[in-house]
Amino acid sequence: MPYRSPSAEIKFILDHVTPIAPLSATEMFAEATGETVEAVLVEAGRLCDEVMAPLLRNGDLHPAKLENGVVRSSPGFKEAYQQIAEGGWVAVAAGQEFGGMGLPQTVCVAVNDMMSGANLALQLNPLLTQGQIEALEHHASDELKETYLPKLISGEWSGTMNLTEPQAGSDVGALRTKAEPKGDGTYAVTGQKIFISWGDSDVTENICHLVLARLPDAAPGTRGISLFMVPKLIPDENGNPGVANSLKVVSLEHKMGLHGSPTCVMSFEGATGWLVGEEGKGMAAMFTMMNNARLAVGVQGIGIAEGAYQKALEYAQDRVQFAPIIEHADVRRMLAEMKAEIFAARSIALACAVALDMGRATGEADWAARAALLTPIAKAYGTDIGMWVAEQGIQVHGGMGFIEETGAAQYYRDVRVTAIYEGTNGIQAMDLVGRKMMDGGKAAFRLLQEVEDEAKAARASLPDLAEDVWQAAESLREATEAMVGSDTQDRFAGAVPFLRAFARVLGAHYHLRAAIAAGKGSAREKLAAVYIRRLLPQYAAALAEAREGAEGLYALSVEDLSA
Amino acid sequence: MPYRSPSAEIKFILDHVTPIAPLSATEMFAEATGETVEAVLVEAGRLCDEVMAPLLRNGDLHPAKLENGVVRSSPGFKEAYQQIAEGGWVAVAAGQEFGGMGLPQTVCVAVNDMMSGANLALQLNPLLTQGQIEALEHHASDELKETYLPKLISGEWSGTMNLTEPQAGSDVGALRTKAEPKGDGTYAVTGQKIFISWGDSDVTENICHLVLARLPDAAPGTRGISLFMVPKLIPDENGNPGVANSLKVVSLEHKMGLHGSPTCVMSFEGATGWLVGEEGKGMAAMFTMMNNARLAVGVQGIGIAEGAYQKALEYAQDRVQFAPIIEHADVRRMLAEMKAEIFAARSIALACAVALDMGRATGEADWAARAALLTPIAKAYGTDIGMWVAEQGIQVHGGMGFIEETGAAQYYRDVRVTAIYEGTNGIQAMDLVGRKMMDGGKAAFRLLQEVEDEAKAARASLPDLAEDVWQAAESLREATEAMVGSDTQDRFAGAVPFLRAFARVLGAHYHLRAAIAAGKGSAREKLAAVYIRRLLPQYAAALAEAREGAEGLYALSVEDLSA
Repeated sequence: MPYRSPSAEIKFILDHVTPIAPLSATEMFAEATGETVEAVLVEAGRLCDEVMAPLLRNGDLHPAKLENGVVRSSPGFKEAYQQIAEGGWVAVAAGQEFGGMGLPQTVCVAVNDMMSGANLALQLNPLLTQGQIEALEHHASDELKETYLPKLISGEWSGTMNLTEPQAGSDVGALRTKAEPKGDGTYAVTGQKIFISWGDSDVTENICHLVLARLPDAAPGTRGISLFMVPKLIPDENGNPGVANSLKVVSLEHKMGLHGSPTCVMSFEGATGWLVGEEGKGMAAMFTMMNNARLAVGVQGIGIAEGAYQKALEYAQDRVQFAPIIEHADVRRMLAEMKAEIFAARSIALACAVALDMGRATGEADWAARAALLTPIAKAYGTDIGMWVAEQGIQVHGGMGFIEETGAAQYYRDVRVTAIYEGTNGIQAMDLVGRKMMDGGKAAFRLLQEVEDEAKAARASLPDLAEDVWQAAESLREATEAMVGSDTQDRFAGAVPFLRAFARVLGAHYHLRAAIAAGKGSAREKLAAVYIRRLLPQYAAALAEAREGAEGLYALSVEDLSA
Repeated sequence: MPYRSPSAEIKFILDHVTPIAPLSATEMFAEATGETVEAVLVEAGRLCDEVMAPLLRNGDLHPAKLENGVVRSSPGFKEAYQQIAEGGWVAVAAGQEFGGMGLPQTVCVAVNDMMSGANLALQLNPLLTQGQIEALEHHASDELKETYLPKLISGEWSGTMNLTEPQAGSDVGALRTKAEPKGDGTYAVTGQKIFISWGDSDVTENICHLVLARLPDAAPGTRGISLFMVPKLIPDENGNPGVANSLKVVSLEHKMGLHGSPTCVMSFEGATGWLVGEEGKGMAAMFTMMNNARLAVGVQGIGIAEGAYQKALEYAQDRVQFAPIIEHADVRRMLAEMKAEIFAARSIALACAVALDMGRATGEADWAARAALLTPIAKAYGTDIGMWVAEQGIQVHGGMGFIEETGAAQYYRDVRVTAIYEGTNGIQAMDLVGRKMMDGGKAAFRLLQEVEDEAKAARASLPDLAEDVWQAAESLREATEAMVGSDTQDRFAGAVPFLRAFARVLGAHYHLRAAIAAGKGSAREKLAAVYIRRLLPQYAAALAEAREGAEGLYALSVEDLSA
């Protein structure tokens, strides 16, 4: 059975678990009615199932190649990309002024979820363009907007993000790429960037690089960084691709997975660039797109998990060992837990997206703070469960799971990078306990209050499950208080397990909502029970670890670790 | 820094944690003195570091190939194998009668641990031969022993295990390969076998297949299965490789990892075979080698974890982002937990091996029962932490971890199969709560009593850690009582988390022993604290899940899971 996009599942979540209805009540998103959203999901789902998913293995077997300095995409990718672009799917959330659909980010996230499950390597291309559109909408001059946005939104051109250099990964401030004013308002950009996804390809006629670089005499560290638009082909006076810029692809990386996505080493050799935003404010502009990109990567993990789950579910029904193996308790357990994890991660991601949109539509700081709080959780948990579900997916397949032709292994290999790029999951966790709690935990406590209130209210109908959720939220509140009161090193030492515990509690919260909405005896209630009874208890161990702090870790010296 | 075999770490464990001394006090293993064992480990370690480890990536980049019906091994493997054979490393634990070293299984396990970390694909070859030697020692006629054992023990010939068929994986009883008596004491074996590791190669002059097959009119299921020796080249009257047998390699599998190990589809076409053991007792004979093979696979996971850990540790010291990343709390946490997990899994595996040897040397049933109990735990936990450490190893590397040239990804891909072959980890867990508790849990309770007694005694010197271990053991005892009293379906539904909890408690137990042995303030104590304070608490959630039983899983119908 081929991949089927989970549009109905997403619709249920948007109706009942993280409702999109308040959004369509705003002026900004009045067009995003339930019917519109459903139609969009069904239409996007068709593209995923019929066009993108059939090419999944093509990307793996026939990686993008560098030929004479130009990247040739995997077979079929160019044609499939054309259909993505023509359907307007690059620009679901882009403003209507330059041709976007103007729908909420939430709908874009839902579409990206389905596309990631269908074909992650291909989906990564429009995803990067989406981030670039957003950065330009917020920070670019009107002239740049008019030149680039229509082409990016139509999908004729694609966008990339150029941050990383060999010595500058998580420490972006260590980057050395230079931008020198040429005197005509443009800059000459020189330097080498690595890990540039879709840094070149033949699926679009032009490729627009957003590049972080330093002006001469710029301050050291992140304060000295500015952002530049550096197109592969410089637009002519009519806005069409003109002369080639001074940049090239040096090589493609040999990766464990995601072979259909060309990961480029880029060399900029005095390439002409245009400043985006203000001088020295490159990081701020980058952060605009990074927050959304982080949510988007979390959703990639969820999409892969969906694909891996569907494949395992099918195999478990077909494969007979004594009985169809889905009848064996341990296989049943794996599948039920996989499904429960996917629902939880998806609900957290969509809740984050709704908060993001509500923040934009209402201007209320509380919504923005919630979105900011949920972003690292959505990213790290979504990609963690992506890895875990893909791993369990192989396990359900037994020996066949290790054979590439089966397809389970590709999910496992492809998804691995999602826990790393756009900030490793460790960095997400540090963001959660650091920057996102600089409000003294206010956003976190407000969310936990909602969790507790709802759990209390749910006691009437689902007493056992509600009690478990309430208790877990109460423990998490205490742990959050302790976290807010502890020093940076202790926070960071406990960040990853703390984030995991937070995700567990939120996952349980959304499962409880789904169970209440679907009613007693429903499949939703049973799935909620799987999550709350079997997986939620892990929060306690995670919080115990989070409380340990840093001391015990540094007690072990590097020599001790090397012994 | 290249791979360094952990011989000193293993020596510490054999001296202080799961002591080998009682073994050298037996008549059977009087030669296995501390000095001998140390010399063996150092010598084997040299081979691992200097000969096997440098070929690790060769196996990945240049997989074994099928050319004109013959498997050509990865470059360098044949020469390295010769050195393994010439060093006597195939037959560390084989009897001296036919040329083996006659050392305890424990020493063989320790050597295999180091070899797995150096080059898993290559190590799998002698490992399979070891299993075959053991099966023949226990079940073959004297004539077969005399023909095959000297050649297998010297490493001139290698051995394979032929169980799986397309329809018969975990359900071995479904196999259809036939063996028909030819009237001269031999049998004509006909059928197709899949997933045959090292089913052919050019590293040995002959390959000896142990094949499970059915006699005509045999009983259905496992009772009708017999075991046959089916050599690739039939030995002539002088015991040298003679005419080719009627068997061939049909194809090699394309696997996610372990490319240096040729995984063959074998076709037996009336091949001449010799009965090993009695008719209809093939499964019993297979189980002899399977128990050891299961422990051995657990050790493969530990070896890979060691390799992955060393690589991550080196990178964390070299890579500077703000500071060397090993100074970041979250990276420090990952490394400390990786090291703590490896110690725990290694100690469990070595404790299992010592029990196995003590059982053989003393004939005491209690030792045999302990070995039987620990085998599925050692297999599943060793391979689970192998996967986990390899996954964390990539995470420590950040983006570089996803690039194949780094080498971290190969561990992740290679190790994945260890949780599947020799019985999936789900099957191990069912073995633990099923067959291994048919004694009413006697062996488990005896072991837990020791854990509790030692924890009590440790209260004087390490009160906090000792109390945590005691409490966890007490909870595990209660859960074991519940498990013994519950029905099969509930046991199986909770088997995997129960096994995990059991491993956690044992891991903590051995860490506590190490801490006591090394003394207060030692690195061992600090590492024990990492395990007991940060990882042990996970036992509670695992036991909660184990207690849930099957009902909630089957409440979700296949339709519910498919919705």
